[in-house]
Amino acid sequence: MVTPLFSDSLVVHTQSHDYPIVITDKHAMAEQVTPYISGQQVLIVTNETVAPLYLSQLQTQLEKSFTVAVCILADGEQYKNQDSINQIYDVLMTARFNRDVTLIALGGGVVGDMTGFAAASFMRGVSFIQIPTTLLSQVDSSVGGKTGINHSQGKNMIGAFWQPQMVLADMSTLQTLPVRELSAGLAEVIKYALIMDIEFLEWLETNLPAMMALDLAILGEAVKRCCEYKADLVAQDEREAGVRALLNFGHTFGHVIETHEGYGNWLHGEAVAVGMVQAAELSQKMGWLSDADVARIKRVLRLANLPINPPSIAPDVALSLMGHDKKVQGGQIRLILLKSLGQAVLTKDFEAQLLTEVLS
Amino acid sequence: MVTPLFSDSLVVHTQSHDYPIVITDKHAMAEQVTPYISGQQVLIVTNETVAPLYLSQLQTQLEKSFTVAVCILADGEQYKNQDSINQIYDVLMTARFNRDVTLIALGGGVVGDMTGFAAASFMRGVSFIQIPTTLLSQVDSSVGGKTGINHSQGKNMIGAFWQPQMVLADMSTLQTLPVRELSAGLAEVIKYALIMDIEFLEWLETNLPAMMALDLAILGEAVKRCCEYKADLVAQDEREAGVRALLNFGHTFGHVIETHEGYGNWLHGEAVAVGMVQAAELSQKMGWLSDADVARIKRVLRLANLPINPPSIAPDVALSLMGHDKKVQGGQIRLILLKSLGQAVLTKDFEAQLLTEVLS
Repeated sequence: MVTPLFSDSLVVHTQSHDYPIVITDKHAMAEQVTPYISGQQVLIVTNETVAPLYLSQLQTQLEKSFTVAVCILADGEQYKNQDSINQIYDVLMTARFNRDVTLIALGGGVVGDMTGFAAASFMRGVSFIQIPTTLLSQVDSSVGGKTGINHSQGKNMIGAFWQPQMVLADMSTLQTLPVRELSAGLAEVIKYALIMDIEFLEWLETNLPAMMALDLAILGEAVKRCCEYKADLVAQDEREAGVRALLNFGHTFGHVIETHEGYGNWLHGEAVAVGMVQAAELSQKMGWLSDADVARIKRVLRLANLPINPPSIAPDVALSLMGHDKKVQGGQIRLILLKSLGQAVLTKDFEAQLLTEVLS
Repeated sequence: MVTPLFSDSLVVHTQSHDYPIVITDKHAMAEQVTPYISGQQVLIVTNETVAPLYLSQLQTQLEKSFTVAVCILADGEQYKNQDSINQIYDVLMTARFNRDVTLIALGGGVVGDMTGFAAASFMRGVSFIQIPTTLLSQVDSSVGGKTGINHSQGKNMIGAFWQPQMVLADMSTLQTLPVRELSAGLAEVIKYALIMDIEFLEWLETNLPAMMALDLAILGEAVKRCCEYKADLVAQDEREAGVRALLNFGHTFGHVIETHEGYGNWLHGEAVAVGMVQAAELSQKMGWLSDADVARIKRVLRLANLPINPPSIAPDVALSLMGHDKKVQGGQIRLILLKSLGQAVLTKDFEAQLLTEVLS
């Protein structure tokens, strides 16, 4: 047993119940989730990449106290679909599990989203616990209750709001995360600083080198702060009618890159990094940010080894791709821009010419 | 336009919102549901049996105010599955509908359950309205928020609790209901009297002949009373931990008949009718009901043209089939029995010998 470098937690308040996010590098998953399992039945859902790394120990430990079944899904966004959900249902039915079962999601955002939706819909709703094993999912999926799958004609079109019983952010899992995915997760961390807190931006400027060097305590502190920021926004706006939209900063621009370049060639976080630069450049053209502000944003993204320059996309193509974004209302593009560093707004009041300039 | 013989309503209170059940024979569906449609997009979900009867008028009327899409499913419990849900999703995506859509379920319980689950899971939850066109669904599905589908290994295994914006019980639709299905619906009506209210039993003894003769006002009054009884039980017990289980009176016995005889050969309500007789006979052997009480139950079921005698099933086979019922807890069979007419209890304290006698 490794002595913990740190163990911290926060409590998330939701309409249905409160739950803790435990952030630690004490690598003892079974011990930490056990208090949140109410029945005798456990289903661990993971994927082919994560299973060889972390499944065996978790499963063996839990089997001392529970009846444990396992569902190992294929790895990748392209498997975030109804077929995978049906696989989970089939394992639950074959194991003859009932309403007392607890599902445990062991993996990144895709595993978490699918496990959550299976939990929301099996026998009209059972308990689930998240063990996110990527920085992105630790930051992004731990709060908000969004679960779901893709439809062949659209991402995240099928799903439910369903809250976990607890989230275990075991930071030691980041030691096996590909470095490019670590950077992609950091893009979302930096996003919170840019939209909500210039003090956190300063903190990141100091600490990003340590985070890139896998200082788990520093990474854990960043995860906690991001979860707190998100919990704050979600509490104000559980159904995403207003301020919660600010979480999509950089995403409308980034979506253009992902779509144009083909999903998977650019990681989501990489596209968001470039998208944040473009949103900042438009904010600068609006007179809200200074040149120095934009340069500072680029610098912090470079500290996380993230791209800051878009691939070559013709402006008219980019504009057309933007038109397909969910944030379009009444045919007009709405963008999240920065009034200043640490303060974002959702607006449709920008000159189309300035947007075209940014995309050129 | 037919002058309404009657129009009545009640309000159901749920955790998420309150909604009305409008009970009327004013056959003007579009007019009555329109105030409860908030956006511009409507999807009507129905089946091949109901569509020729009621779809055209509803669709034409709604198209004056809304963008309307239609999904016509195959008719039957065997189609209450993921494939049908996927059909609904596909129509929603092809129509490019979004979070503002309202789904309308036009049909019996199967259509209602599936439409509700599609509404619960499309874009993490959109609005829906129920127009139940069978007596069973008017009585049974209007209250409680249960939605879902079957899994190949079990009924109603996948689903969600999701409440409608309103329920329109248009009693005039019962004029096209096969008489055998009317009787099957009356079994559930009689059930409420037996478990909750002896005064309602007296009312039924007087009024069942008129109901069998399709007196819509009398049928509407019965529907309203049943919805009120169910709303009362559900309010006490939204997640079905206690008193809500009383709604399953007659169902454990009835389930044996349905399973043994093959689903579809006995209608659900017919099996429940016989099951209620068996539960009453066991209650009589326990000393709770008199012979006259049991005779009275049989008489009221006969007034609704319902069967009162079980098919031939060996007692050991029946007991084994009972063991697979969801209401088994810790290996012991729990049954809903009558302490007296109008008062049900859930109990495992009965002599196995008496149960075997009832099944013989």
